[in-house]
Amino acid sequence: MTIIFYVYAILGTSFFGEISPPEYFGDIFLSFVTLFQIFTLESWASGIFRPIFIEEPLSWIYFITFIVIATFIMINLIVGEIVNNAQKISDDIEEETKEIKEDTSEISELRKEIREIKEMLQKQS
Amino acid sequence: MTIIFYVYAILGTSFFGEISPPEYFGDIFLSFVTLFQIFTLESWASGIFRPIFIEEPLSWIYFITFIVIATFIMINLIVGEIVNNAQKISDDIEEETKEIKEDTSEISELRKEIREIKEMLQKQS
Amino acid sequence: MTIIFYVYAILGTSFFGEISPPEYFGDIFLSFVTLFQIFTLESWASGIFRPIFIEEPLSWIYFITFIVIATFIMINLIVGEIVNNAQKISDDIEEETKEIKEDTSEISELRKEIREIKEMLQKQS
Amino acid sequence: MTIIFYVYAILGTSFFGEISPPEYFGDIFLSFVTLFQIFTLESWASGIFRPIFIEEPLSWIYFITFIVIATFIMINLIVGEIVNNAQKISDDIEEETKEIKEDTSEISELRKEIREIKEMLQKQS
Repeated sequence: MTIIFYVYAILGTSFFGEISPPEYFGDIFLSFVTLFQIFTLESWASGIFRPIFIEEPLSWIYFITFIVIATFIMINLIVGEIVNNAQKISDDIEEETKEIKEDTSEISELRKEIREIKEMLQKQS
Repeated sequence: MTIIFYVYAILGTSFFGEISPPEYFGDIFLSFVTLFQIFTLESWASGIFRPIFIEEPLSWIYFITFIVIATFIMINLIVGEIVNNAQKISDDIEEETKEIKEDTSEISELRKEIREIKEMLQKQS
Repeated sequence: MTIIFYVYAILGTSFFGEISPPEYFGDIFLSFVTLFQIFTLESWASGIFRPIFIEEPLSWIYFITFIVIATFIMINLIVGEIVNNAQKISDDIEEETKEIKEDTSEISELRKEIREIKEMLQKQS
Repeated sequence: MTIIFYVYAILGTSFFGEISPPEYFGDIFLSFVTLFQIFTLESWASGIFRPIFIEEPLSWIYFITFIVIATFIMINLIVGEIVNNAQKISDDIEEETKEIKEDTSEISELRKEIREIKEMLQKQS
């Protein structure tokens, strides 16, 4: 995430530093603040992107890829947090089923021994 | 998702191409960019919809259905990702319970054999 | 959800119909459109709420309760969809564990019978 | 959450009470309303933060930490709700697996007894 912000901050400063108002992409630090604003989707188009879009028709690549990548990472972090927690919950169950399986795997051996007993008894009679 | 964007881009260009400022629905490509902005819910009403709404009172159908459909698809993708991961986690458990069931299904047969042994012993005595 | 929208549309039309610009709360239908805009959180404060807030200092109750209730319902719908799907996944496992439990509940009876056999054999010898 | 809002309302009122327009951070109550607006991410940058940022270059710390903390808490509440529900669902399964484990833990004792029977029969013959 930090890398994405860093790369886009450098790109933004060099691409739009002179086209857009200096408070948006004037230096690396201002670009970071602006990228945070874009990340929250606040006035990213009406305030920042549209005025640049008129000057530089290819700027949509910068803005739309940043939003898609940043929100994709964010969504995956949240999904990942939920899935990790679900994994932990299921680990308790899985551990118990493993112990049960160890027990029940003896059942077929039990059956063999019982068959042996039966045979012994059949010989006796 | 791409289809939804495509259909709405074509509709938007033909419906609002002349009512709204040309940078919004001037051509198919600009409509795509505008739909992405609407999808992020950024100034969709204050910037894009309200000025068109004054000219064309039925335009709410276009904007509101697009937002409802696009966000619905987005939410379902995220929910689907979570549910798929939960499914994978539970598959491990389910596989083990199946093996356990194979073992435990022998228990009733075990019982039959033990009863036979008992009967044999009862005859002996 | 529809009820919440309906109640707030009626309240909004009667409360703010004359304070705010007519395109926001002019009639029930316009209130519905405005509430949808507020629901998407688009310019709800800067565009709609703040100008009304200056006229009517209690209007924050209307806007903030609507946003809290509407987003709360929305979040619960999404959480509910995820939980329902998780429930369906676990139902498969639960069904199998029930069948396993039926099998394993015979184990204690098995043990009783084996003890009887042992006693019979002890008497024999 | 309430504490975060309270702390930031006090800080905001004392820091920005005189720099920003009085309707934003004029008193504690107005700061609460403004923080709710920032929490919904509505015009937080274009409307509230950017004008203050020009006057007070360190104000980004206040706004960005508030957004990060508040949305982090919100996301965790939602993730927590999902995980709690998943926990409840798995508790039913876990309870049943515990009962099954109690049953299957008898299997090894069963085996011992069957071995004893076998030995007794071997002595007999």
